[in-house]
Amino acid sequence: MPETKTPIERVSIVVSKGSLEGVYPALIMANGARMEGIEATLFFTFFGLDAIIDKRLDHLKVATVGNPAMHMPTLVGALPGMSAFATSMMKKEMEKLDIPPVREFLTMVHDAGCEIFACKASVDMFHLKRGDFCPEVDEVISVGQFYEKSAGAEIIFT
Amino acid sequence: MPETKTPIERVSIVVSKGSLEGVYPALIMANGARMEGIEATLFFTFFGLDAIIDKRLDHLKVATVGNPAMHMPTLVGALPGMSAFATSMMKKEMEKLDIPPVREFLTMVHDAGCEIFACKASVDMFHLKRGDFCPEVDEVISVGQFYEKSAGAEIIFT
Amino acid sequence: MPETKTPIERVSIVVSKGSLEGVYPALIMANGARMEGIEATLFFTFFGLDAIIDKRLDHLKVATVGNPAMHMPTLVGALPGMSAFATSMMKKEMEKLDIPPVREFLTMVHDAGCEIFACKASVDMFHLKRGDFCPEVDEVISVGQFYEKSAGAEIIFT
Repeated sequence: MPETKTPIERVSIVVSKGSLEGVYPALIMANGARMEGIEATLFFTFFGLDAIIDKRLDHLKVATVGNPAMHMPTLVGALPGMSAFATSMMKKEMEKLDIPPVREFLTMVHDAGCEIFACKASVDMFHLKRGDFCPEVDEVISVGQFYEKSAGAEIIFT
Repeated sequence: MPETKTPIERVSIVVSKGSLEGVYPALIMANGARMEGIEATLFFTFFGLDAIIDKRLDHLKVATVGNPAMHMPTLVGALPGMSAFATSMMKKEMEKLDIPPVREFLTMVHDAGCEIFACKASVDMFHLKRGDFCPEVDEVISVGQFYEKSAGAEIIFT
Repeated sequence: MPETKTPIERVSIVVSKGSLEGVYPALIMANGARMEGIEATLFFTFFGLDAIIDKRLDHLKVATVGNPAMHMPTLVGALPGMSAFATSMMKKEMEKLDIPPVREFLTMVHDAGCEIFACKASVDMFHLKRGDFCPEVDEVISVGQFYEKSAGAEIIFT
């Protein structure tokens, strides 16, 4: 196939997890896209909704069990306070790298032109209202609308 | 780039997790695709196979540890019965939204034209046989065949 | 849509998890791609970095909690030694299927032409140096460079 490779022009990133280490890769990939002039959309669904719920997004935590790469025995990871401790460590490292906290990160990518959507089915399942979300959320949309808005995009499920 | 954006015409969804909250997003995205006239394929691999094993698919559970978005202390989430409790809560919410249980959901998306495949390497690793799967499974295929069948599709790994 | 479907010609696989069952699907998909003549790139980020850290990659473990598909009560999965036990079981099954250990798998896909990259932001966050990685790692690159190298590729986030 001698043709030229088509550059990535648009990414549509689904955020399905609500842990800090589940949300950051999505934000970093959305931000990296915008910095390259690539269009970006974030679609928050299931537990990922936590990252755009105004009362919760400042309190996302690192999971200290169920992840052997944490190098922490499960019974230690399960101790009250361990998740808060790991979270505070991770936040400090992020800060050193100039990676902003979730709220500022959402504002930053939104200001840079990234669209932010919440998944309607998940919003209904968790009995959430439009007013529960941070102001950066542009719209609550269905999965069908998500596909329509993903025309020309790489869909990345995180 | 002045060209028109190509709409999503086909999705090829990989299901690698066997928890209820791991399987539903894949089913919802496959169903949403079919409702929009988008071709859809589901490819079950690793622990995702649980969702198409006839004896297991009615008993998938929510993970109550390792997910800080559950807002449950790890030692509470680890108590016997907590996963069953969270699972029953989630199923009730799903039902209210007319989201069917896994078995009916598989039948529904399959009837709507979604192809359902099991990953050969995983089937071999877990010593499974064709007869272990629900009737909606069309074929056990290799990763190579999965790529062939994904021509023109967005691959979505969940 | 009467046009011919474009075959998958290139995959760009992001590895974000460091558990054995998180890393293998990515390696198997990269290998399956190369066997079909599909170009493949692996991009290791966040906890996925464990799979290319020379001192760690031989010791990746299966997560025995937080995964209901393990069919193991959480309090049992949390016992010291359970993760090592499940890991050893999984490795044995892999071996029977001629699926190589992580180190040999990396060499194999790299020899087959798969490019292997580490994510710069994650490398910085975990205070890693180029010398910490196995020799198969071609380069440490930014998310922006990752997108550039993904021209014409399906991005698969695992």
